[in-house]
Amino acid sequence: MDFRSDNIAGVAPQIMAAIADANTGSATPYGDDDATSGLTALFADVFETDVAVFPLGTGTAANSLALSAIAPPYGAMYCHADAHVIQDECGASELFTGGARLVGLDGDHGKIYASSLASAIETATPHGPHNMQPAAVSLSQATEAGTLYAPEEIMAITGVAKAAGISVHMDGARFANAVVGSGMSPADLTWRVGVDVLSFGATKNGAMGAEAVVFFDVRRAADFERRRKRGGQLFSKMRFVSAQLAGYLSNDLWLDLATHANTQAARISEELDRVEGIELLHPTKVNEVFLAVTDAMADGLEAQGFQFHRWTLGENNAVGLRLVASFETTAEQVDGLVSAAQSLAE
Amino acid sequence: MDFRSDNIAGVAPQIMAAIADANTGSATPYGDDDATSGLTALFADVFETDVAVFPLGTGTAANSLALSAIAPPYGAMYCHADAHVIQDECGASELFTGGARLVGLDGDHGKIYASSLASAIETATPHGPHNMQPAAVSLSQATEAGTLYAPEEIMAITGVAKAAGISVHMDGARFANAVVGSGMSPADLTWRVGVDVLSFGATKNGAMGAEAVVFFDVRRAADFERRRKRGGQLFSKMRFVSAQLAGYLSNDLWLDLATHANTQAARISEELDRVEGIELLHPTKVNEVFLAVTDAMADGLEAQGFQFHRWTLGENNAVGLRLVASFETTAEQVDGLVSAAQSLAE
Amino acid sequence: MDFRSDNIAGVAPQIMAAIADANTGSATPYGDDDATSGLTALFADVFETDVAVFPLGTGTAANSLALSAIAPPYGAMYCHADAHVIQDECGASELFTGGARLVGLDGDHGKIYASSLASAIETATPHGPHNMQPAAVSLSQATEAGTLYAPEEIMAITGVAKAAGISVHMDGARFANAVVGSGMSPADLTWRVGVDVLSFGATKNGAMGAEAVVFFDVRRAADFERRRKRGGQLFSKMRFVSAQLAGYLSNDLWLDLATHANTQAARISEELDRVEGIELLHPTKVNEVFLAVTDAMADGLEAQGFQFHRWTLGENNAVGLRLVASFETTAEQVDGLVSAAQSLAE
Amino acid sequence: MDFRSDNIAGVAPQIMAAIADANTGSATPYGDDDATSGLTALFADVFETDVAVFPLGTGTAANSLALSAIAPPYGAMYCHADAHVIQDECGASELFTGGARLVGLDGDHGKIYASSLASAIETATPHGPHNMQPAAVSLSQATEAGTLYAPEEIMAITGVAKAAGISVHMDGARFANAVVGSGMSPADLTWRVGVDVLSFGATKNGAMGAEAVVFFDVRRAADFERRRKRGGQLFSKMRFVSAQLAGYLSNDLWLDLATHANTQAARISEELDRVEGIELLHPTKVNEVFLAVTDAMADGLEAQGFQFHRWTLGENNAVGLRLVASFETTAEQVDGLVSAAQSLAE
Repeated sequence: MDFRSDNIAGVAPQIMAAIADANTGSATPYGDDDATSGLTALFADVFETDVAVFPLGTGTAANSLALSAIAPPYGAMYCHADAHVIQDECGASELFTGGARLVGLDGDHGKIYASSLASAIETATPHGPHNMQPAAVSLSQATEAGTLYAPEEIMAITGVAKAAGISVHMDGARFANAVVGSGMSPADLTWRVGVDVLSFGATKNGAMGAEAVVFFDVRRAADFERRRKRGGQLFSKMRFVSAQLAGYLSNDLWLDLATHANTQAARISEELDRVEGIELLHPTKVNEVFLAVTDAMADGLEAQGFQFHRWTLGENNAVGLRLVASFETTAEQVDGLVSAAQSLAE
Repeated sequence: MDFRSDNIAGVAPQIMAAIADANTGSATPYGDDDATSGLTALFADVFETDVAVFPLGTGTAANSLALSAIAPPYGAMYCHADAHVIQDECGASELFTGGARLVGLDGDHGKIYASSLASAIETATPHGPHNMQPAAVSLSQATEAGTLYAPEEIMAITGVAKAAGISVHMDGARFANAVVGSGMSPADLTWRVGVDVLSFGATKNGAMGAEAVVFFDVRRAADFERRRKRGGQLFSKMRFVSAQLAGYLSNDLWLDLATHANTQAARISEELDRVEGIELLHPTKVNEVFLAVTDAMADGLEAQGFQFHRWTLGENNAVGLRLVASFETTAEQVDGLVSAAQSLAE
Repeated sequence: MDFRSDNIAGVAPQIMAAIADANTGSATPYGDDDATSGLTALFADVFETDVAVFPLGTGTAANSLALSAIAPPYGAMYCHADAHVIQDECGASELFTGGARLVGLDGDHGKIYASSLASAIETATPHGPHNMQPAAVSLSQATEAGTLYAPEEIMAITGVAKAAGISVHMDGARFANAVVGSGMSPADLTWRVGVDVLSFGATKNGAMGAEAVVFFDVRRAADFERRRKRGGQLFSKMRFVSAQLAGYLSNDLWLDLATHANTQAARISEELDRVEGIELLHPTKVNEVFLAVTDAMADGLEAQGFQFHRWTLGENNAVGLRLVASFETTAEQVDGLVSAAQSLAE
Repeated sequence: MDFRSDNIAGVAPQIMAAIADANTGSATPYGDDDATSGLTALFADVFETDVAVFPLGTGTAANSLALSAIAPPYGAMYCHADAHVIQDECGASELFTGGARLVGLDGDHGKIYASSLASAIETATPHGPHNMQPAAVSLSQATEAGTLYAPEEIMAITGVAKAAGISVHMDGARFANAVVGSGMSPADLTWRVGVDVLSFGATKNGAMGAEAVVFFDVRRAADFERRRKRGGQLFSKMRFVSAQLAGYLSNDLWLDLATHANTQAARISEELDRVEGIELLHPTKVNEVFLAVTDAMADGLEAQGFQFHRWTLGENNAVGLRLVASFETTAEQVDGLVSAAQSLAE
């Protein structure tokens, strides 16, 4: 009954098996192994284009190293004001870029607008060297609000970016959920709509600790192996990271796991939205549900052992809840949650 | 017949089992789980003192984050000129410290001398703000040359350090091999002889990807959780890193694995040292053997499929070889190597 | 007729004379000269307390080096959203702190509120290592809007800061104007109300290129000489920087120059506020006047050769103007401006 | 009788006059003034090629910002082991490059060899991302030993650099003395022999505080204005820095001042070299004289009020002295020194 995050889940059995299978014989360390070199073809297949792929261990490292490859230390990097990169990574991007600045932009439901980006760039530009140089924009897909950018929304933003000569990063910590939730292909969500580099997450969706930075313009990856090494992310036994990613992408496992999680979240969303006194704060597009509930409802659910993120919503005693479904969330757990909420509402 | 490194080995079965065992139910992410919190007591027991323990993923991250906790960005950090931190980590320490400088000191067999450290500090001090401030010394135990500092050697160095007000880091990427090789207790190799912070390695000795930064003065760890987070090393499913370390320390597994590796290396060293035309470059104290051989010997061994690091030794056509034994190295593999060398020498 | 900035002015004759006087004989370089060592007593006298004083060359260096002495690289530094440190220094603070983040807070007339600071700190704290650590607050006195914090406003803010264990920086690029404009003593505007370190500006008020970082808690200055050196601000012929500061502080020159500038700005403000169609955007407390005027007025003044900063104010065609008076601004220049505006309004 | 450094001298009267002349009327701040824009043509004339010129305040800033423009944060920057950038700037290059590493190479008389550079690059290259990437070489002209690289020596070094794809910086803190001492043209000492970017010093040779970073490939200067700004070196009243440089370059003043200093040093060198018990440590090519003397000689000179840098030379009680002549050093001062040494030697 733990809906706090998809990070609370363990490792999908297929991925655990892939790790065990990788534990055979010796392998060249530091990523010069077969499992790692095989990733290039796997990702190229998934994304329908040539890519440069760099496996590493955490989403924070993926995001901040990816940004360091596209933003100079005197650069400004635009993102949503609630984005993980600016709110939850303790300044990792500042560290890895050597001092570039994240600039938070507002926007409903976790999404920035092309117009806000254009306006931020316009404000910065005429001031010359006194301003940091507009350098990058980072989009989260899915967003921190559990919503999705439509491809045309991405294209509007990347159009502004390209016109201004700045690069586009996508934080895909929940990229599998975004693919499933949108029904779009990985290519249609990324390079075909102007994304230059993707943080491809697997950990939240069933891996143990495996992410990848994916460059769609291979030339931009030229110095990334040194950035990753000095960033402490070149694992000596890299084969075990790469094996996770290979297992994840094989046989559509990544999509199956995300489908399960999204489906459970959709059920939570639909059922609880019908409960009196509960309102959806954001549309549920992937595996996260954001609700406004009463204090009594939140207390009641907690008293019955349900776990979730909870915060105060403004003045009127209302409570915000975030409920996240993972590949391990069962229909029974969802049923239990729904029943509990219905009972408490009566 | 792969003697290139202990990194080419896989994961010890007991550690693989510990990982599998950790894959049960949900756990609070980002290190607030039971496996992680349990490490404090485990390490305190091994080191016979209170410690602050921070699991993370790579040795490079352990070293450079540990140094960032004890050296300011305008600091000088002394180490052996061949140390891993200065030679093999692509400037990670410069990144994580924000610009502190590694200063390489010479010394036979991979070890620096207390007198060299004293001299380096004396040279820097009178020059005031024009010089970087002496801040830290980093000792590798075991060293890059497969040798060991005796406790009295460490104490001489740390004595110089303490007198100068600088801190002491130990790179223990092969700390288990050092404990076994020296016959000393973990405490006698570290805090009892003046070490402030240890990079405790497990990956080279049977883990999948698990290291720990261990502070012996718990107060110095105050800001380390933020340093680790911004360094991209706070794994969301940390329980799987911590489970490796817990399994590693349990039932003396870490010492058993290191004993095996050291024993195999000792056999290689003894047997090959008797072969005509082969000379030991450094005494073999842990699991690494450094040899001077003829070109023909090196070529011959490679032709038979033996793998190792090889480099040219000065003018006289001699070849340097590094052979590393791991927990997986078998007696048969060693026998094969010894026989081959003996045959080639005839 | 150039009202663009106080930076467009030259050097006050008394300061030029002090520079010329310093050009006698040899002097120990890098700040170990008499002029520099004499600054400690001069500043101690002005501030009525023991201080540590570090002369340097630019306001950007003063601000960012001062912040680097009080904020760790994983720290958050709060300031007004329009402050010079966040808007006009191209990320210098990020560079010199090694990655700390400036967090802009809103507030009318260029001033932040104690309550906003308290709220920002409260939001960051419970999230642990995921958030940057609240570390410092930077107040501009005078502000970017030409206004002043009252001592009780400063005390409310520094009270919040002290309660949270964070340090207080004051950007005093126009500190002389603030002293004159407030009628308060330097001590009453700084350490007596909780300021830890001050960027003391002289350049905008008649010096050639001379600023000082002043620590009121001398112990906090321990490493500043190295920070200044590595920051490229330890001038070899420091006597010429220090001579500017000594000349500036002698015989109340700094206050006389600021009194002149403030007086001219007050006249501009009072006279133009009476002109139909012109409104003050901020109260005029020092030497900067912010006005809302019509497009026609702005165009007309420019056509007559008046220079100022100009920007568009929202939707209704109104134009914002910033007019700055310096120690060189003459009564005739002000008369000319006032007459021109009056004529244009008729 | 102060021979400690050329930094102990004041400001040449012609430069003081240029500063005073610049103090007329208002000027656009932050380098958008006529004096600053005029520097481009002046430097182009001196160097006989198109250049991009950036005035700033200190040699440390010039060197470290110049290096930041040509070395990535994961780069290795080669220099002589005694170079100012590695020995005397407290890690400024590490700060401004964001973590690149200075690698000191040995060489007699303050000069590195092309072969040493080639060897250092060869060692680093095959190790891939584990090594920092060879990125730049920094040559001091004149050197820290008061010697000069011949153009063919520079060309040998820059040839190695170009072949390896790395950039060439020249630390010209005493560039005027090098031009005069070598009898070569500025162009023949720099871009014609492969130098990409020059730290052009004026302060040691008569300016108050004025240096310039000069790019010979203008395209490489694209981001330097932002690097300078965030580095705290964009002076608001830049006209006073630029006026120094303009005055310095006008009417061959810079060469006249250096000729004077070199001539005085040559006399010291020739005369003292004839004194029994005194030996030259390095050939005297510019305005610095390095001597080995007896303890008694050093003590005797100091007792008579002569000032110089002094250090212990190895075991045999000999003392090293550095004597520096400046544009202010008089023939009488040199006579006095020579007489004193002669008397002490009798």
